[in-house]
Amino acid sequence: MTKTRVAILGATGYTASELIHLFARHPYAEITALTTRSEDRPHVADVHPSVRGLLDLYLEPLTDDELAARADCVFCCLPHKASADRVPGLLDRGMKVIDLSADYRLDDAQTFTEWYGETHPDPDRLGKTPYGLPELFRDKIVGANLVANPGCYPTSSILPLTPLLLNGYIKPEDIIIDSKSGTSGAGKSLKPGNMYCTVNENFQAYGVGTHRHRPEIEQVIARKTGTLPSVIFTPHLVAMDRGIFTTTYSLPAKAADEKELIACLRDFYKNEQFVRVMDALPCVKAVAHTNFCDMTVRVVRNRVMTLSCIDNLVKGASGAALQNFNILYGYPENTALI
Amino acid sequence: MTKTRVAILGATGYTASELIHLFARHPYAEITALTTRSEDRPHVADVHPSVRGLLDLYLEPLTDDELAARADCVFCCLPHKASADRVPGLLDRGMKVIDLSADYRLDDAQTFTEWYGETHPDPDRLGKTPYGLPELFRDKIVGANLVANPGCYPTSSILPLTPLLLNGYIKPEDIIIDSKSGTSGAGKSLKPGNMYCTVNENFQAYGVGTHRHRPEIEQVIARKTGTLPSVIFTPHLVAMDRGIFTTTYSLPAKAADEKELIACLRDFYKNEQFVRVMDALPCVKAVAHTNFCDMTVRVVRNRVMTLSCIDNLVKGASGAALQNFNILYGYPENTALI
Amino acid sequence: MTKTRVAILGATGYTASELIHLFARHPYAEITALTTRSEDRPHVADVHPSVRGLLDLYLEPLTDDELAARADCVFCCLPHKASADRVPGLLDRGMKVIDLSADYRLDDAQTFTEWYGETHPDPDRLGKTPYGLPELFRDKIVGANLVANPGCYPTSSILPLTPLLLNGYIKPEDIIIDSKSGTSGAGKSLKPGNMYCTVNENFQAYGVGTHRHRPEIEQVIARKTGTLPSVIFTPHLVAMDRGIFTTTYSLPAKAADEKELIACLRDFYKNEQFVRVMDALPCVKAVAHTNFCDMTVRVVRNRVMTLSCIDNLVKGASGAALQNFNILYGYPENTALI
Amino acid sequence: MTKTRVAILGATGYTASELIHLFARHPYAEITALTTRSEDRPHVADVHPSVRGLLDLYLEPLTDDELAARADCVFCCLPHKASADRVPGLLDRGMKVIDLSADYRLDDAQTFTEWYGETHPDPDRLGKTPYGLPELFRDKIVGANLVANPGCYPTSSILPLTPLLLNGYIKPEDIIIDSKSGTSGAGKSLKPGNMYCTVNENFQAYGVGTHRHRPEIEQVIARKTGTLPSVIFTPHLVAMDRGIFTTTYSLPAKAADEKELIACLRDFYKNEQFVRVMDALPCVKAVAHTNFCDMTVRVVRNRVMTLSCIDNLVKGASGAALQNFNILYGYPENTALI
Repeated sequence: MTKTRVAILGATGYTASELIHLFARHPYAEITALTTRSEDRPHVADVHPSVRGLLDLYLEPLTDDELAARADCVFCCLPHKASADRVPGLLDRGMKVIDLSADYRLDDAQTFTEWYGETHPDPDRLGKTPYGLPELFRDKIVGANLVANPGCYPTSSILPLTPLLLNGYIKPEDIIIDSKSGTSGAGKSLKPGNMYCTVNENFQAYGVGTHRHRPEIEQVIARKTGTLPSVIFTPHLVAMDRGIFTTTYSLPAKAADEKELIACLRDFYKNEQFVRVMDALPCVKAVAHTNFCDMTVRVVRNRVMTLSCIDNLVKGASGAALQNFNILYGYPENTALI
Repeated sequence: MTKTRVAILGATGYTASELIHLFARHPYAEITALTTRSEDRPHVADVHPSVRGLLDLYLEPLTDDELAARADCVFCCLPHKASADRVPGLLDRGMKVIDLSADYRLDDAQTFTEWYGETHPDPDRLGKTPYGLPELFRDKIVGANLVANPGCYPTSSILPLTPLLLNGYIKPEDIIIDSKSGTSGAGKSLKPGNMYCTVNENFQAYGVGTHRHRPEIEQVIARKTGTLPSVIFTPHLVAMDRGIFTTTYSLPAKAADEKELIACLRDFYKNEQFVRVMDALPCVKAVAHTNFCDMTVRVVRNRVMTLSCIDNLVKGASGAALQNFNILYGYPENTALI
Repeated sequence: MTKTRVAILGATGYTASELIHLFARHPYAEITALTTRSEDRPHVADVHPSVRGLLDLYLEPLTDDELAARADCVFCCLPHKASADRVPGLLDRGMKVIDLSADYRLDDAQTFTEWYGETHPDPDRLGKTPYGLPELFRDKIVGANLVANPGCYPTSSILPLTPLLLNGYIKPEDIIIDSKSGTSGAGKSLKPGNMYCTVNENFQAYGVGTHRHRPEIEQVIARKTGTLPSVIFTPHLVAMDRGIFTTTYSLPAKAADEKELIACLRDFYKNEQFVRVMDALPCVKAVAHTNFCDMTVRVVRNRVMTLSCIDNLVKGASGAALQNFNILYGYPENTALI
Repeated sequence: MTKTRVAILGATGYTASELIHLFARHPYAEITALTTRSEDRPHVADVHPSVRGLLDLYLEPLTDDELAARADCVFCCLPHKASADRVPGLLDRGMKVIDLSADYRLDDAQTFTEWYGETHPDPDRLGKTPYGLPELFRDKIVGANLVANPGCYPTSSILPLTPLLLNGYIKPEDIIIDSKSGTSGAGKSLKPGNMYCTVNENFQAYGVGTHRHRPEIEQVIARKTGTLPSVIFTPHLVAMDRGIFTTTYSLPAKAADEKELIACLRDFYKNEQFVRVMDALPCVKAVAHTNFCDMTVRVVRNRVMTLSCIDNLVKGASGAALQNFNILYGYPENTALI
């Protein structure tokens, strides 16, 4: 059987490294091109020492035509805006694209400009591109040519909240999302905030009230539930490599105890292999290096709380991207994801 | 000048180790007795290797009379209930006591029984013992014989919330406190949850809706503001040795922007050396190994947020205890605390 | 195709958890039994939360006959001595056994008693059981019924040293091995030395001159090279979950520069997928969660140094065990190991 | 009493932060000037958030004359070479200087050029400047105007080795020093090797055979013992903020057991408060945030091993610098160091 040929656009970061490890286990696909802006053409094993022996490619500055000659599907790991600059050219040449940037996640160009401070280069595809959370939008992903791969915080928040909203258990107003993320979520850029001695033995909030994942969470929930929720989103930086833990506090819309609320989630995700609804409290370590999202519910005083975790690099990025890839190409959805 | 003689009751834990380091710098006091239930009488340097050379004492099972012969003031680091079993005997013999357990923090024996599952051995002192947060209750601490040293989570929560409540900026209802603590807060007991490979690269909530610091926070705020608030308190365990970061979400009681709210805190604590009100977001690392509490305020949508940090072993335990000691004995309040 | 049925004897520890994750990817085998001494019969997802959804079995106290009815091959994860108490019964019933304890690694019962303080229950198999390092003893493993899975420190030491000894580059006398291991290597037992606040932000040596992996290193090298080396072995405990870094210092037996020595290793391992000989210095993170052993050589003054790393739970334990399993059953050796 | 006025030249790094914390406790000295090359003149609390409230100064680009007007003593925390460019001017203006760079530690300009790749700007002071390890060179430090503050690795190595060499217990040839350092030792520079996700859950060697602390160790030991030793020095980077653990392997020069060797160290340091010779194995955590050097000896096969630890930012840098300061000004040597 011919393997599906995969390219990674922007292959120097953590999500690319994770994709290479995942595809090394994929029986039906192979990575055939890696790109970088740099003219140095480094070998992938020098950029990502852990993949030495798994892939023998150089990172190259490839044009759209060169990519089209070498790949069927492109995983776009470029920064926001840079991604939407490239995606139309890739689609025009018949490639499928899974975009890991934020460029195609929002509903409209105006919101994009408001939160990302840039004019969107490809506004017509906004609102029409499926959001790559298969557990909620699988029917939209099947047959698509472009998928907007979800943000890490949104995945950890939308998955537990949506079933409770859809079933009328919680109100869409005054949802508080207090999230905590490992440091790989901040990317590989050389800034003081990412240094070992800054992060280690430290804990802090950042982007309070201003983080770009807030509109993503709100618009995606609205797309699924029909009602725009009002969210307060507070991310915190944790001294660990990977993992997100999200604690949410919502107002109940009708009386229900923990048992009923957990049953609601369990029923909603009963056919989803990658969502594990639990009675016990979840923890990051049980999902690290996996594509699982673990979650539970608690009722405390006048609030419904959800507690959920994912690995930000797997279910929050590269694992979800591979799950979307498997859907696009008709492979078993969990291929190379267990 | 004769030094004040200090005993530590229950000297095997982290708070005792921290007290010994702090007293090694104290010019007006010295540690003269350390106790343990064990008959092994270990040398303090074998129990706490870091204090070798700073203190040459053995841990011994001492009676109240033996303690009275050797110490003027006792820092009681026993578990809850065990502390209130000993404290009356110490006070009867004329010693002053700073109690680091939870036994004298609550207002009444009924609440104690409800949350700690024990009958309080010394109920008459509840509601009359000053709560050892000098920034709020200094006048009650001066001249006391017994001080209830605050809990770590309560200190990190009460300090930022109280001035906003007292000045009518936030409502006492529906206060959400999302706290994150380093692992020394869990104490030194040998349980799976405290193992390195359980905690490291992990993040989790615990005691959701059931943690004993919730009634402490509510009652102490009520004592200062006159109104019992309603609090949802969620603690989380973080892979770091020390430090607490507390994020709170309150409903505004009147219109005010961040500038005004920060000014409120700054004014309230203008004479307090150990509270640092900041415009920037605080972080745990800036307060680790210090007696400072750093804090700021943010307004996000319909909520007033406070963000604050302390070192749970210093301002959240032993540092606060030493601050209380300095007040009890009339020493400059920051002695050995800088 | 019928899958090979696998049992894990002593399934509560870290190596069992790792085996379950690895076998979840194995197309030709499945885990069919898990044992524990406890009568509680816990579900595997309650013992190892990360495997929830990957395996639906209970841990049970099974007899040899019960195991024989349910499994073709047993991975024995019992403590030393306990393992050799069970292994003969398993072999007698026709099962193959991969023993992760130290019980069958040494050459003779006397050395076992000297270092482990116990009389060996099954001395006749000592010296005849293949040592499960396929890169050195693959021909002995093929067709075996029992394999002694290597210790983690020995794997990290024997792999770089053996080719240099075999090719006469270094002397077998005065080999210094300075190793550093992540904390999972210490196992899951509840002891003060394994507590988060003991290990975190700490670094220490242990078992200096007395660690049981020294005779294993010496005897296994002797088995391969014909000469018993003299080793000084110093293990250190590092604040990380997994990984071993081993630095060795040997006396040169003939003149050779780094290039020649690296070429020696590269040639020796040229057909071995799981050994990556590099010019650059290796690091633990590049091998964590993989079955690779990375290594290089340096010449400093009068010494030949090797620097090597493995993941102690994968190539140092469960990954090597699976590699041996694949050999025993004729599956591609890297099945489920990439 | 007038306080001694202290300036820190190059006040943006970790050693400056540590000095500020230490001087906040010093009753006889105060920091009166902080310098930086930047024209931004940032407030020290914005550069080092942890010192907010302890010092109210701005970092300024000050000339030698400006420094002379404001300070009696300068702690020079500049990079190597930059330091020796400034030191003569400071001395000429009558200030005392404690130099934390490597510029005045070596014996001669040729060795400096060989290892640091620069022509030394002030070669005449090489070989004449006291090496600021008071436990070995106190008599040279008293009365000096310039002190070369020791390197962190050298302090951890020289202190345990020197007494054994002086007493003829070990040979100066073939000394192997295998050191492991926390990440603050790498400084605050923005490089990939210092990123959280690079260092965390990782372990690696660096500078194998080429680290500049090797000639420092050799020359300083020669200065004290009269014989130039031959050292192999291997540094490793550890995922912890601070601390150095050094394991050395030496050839015995005469027969002696551990007891005798430990007694040798104990006797040599019997009047030194900051050296703690122990029977037990030392660990980094017991010396972190202190000025102690903990050490012991083991005899394994044909080798004498020393195991020692310090906090690289305290005894390995700023604490030692303050100890030297106290000697220069006649204050009790442990002032502000307990």
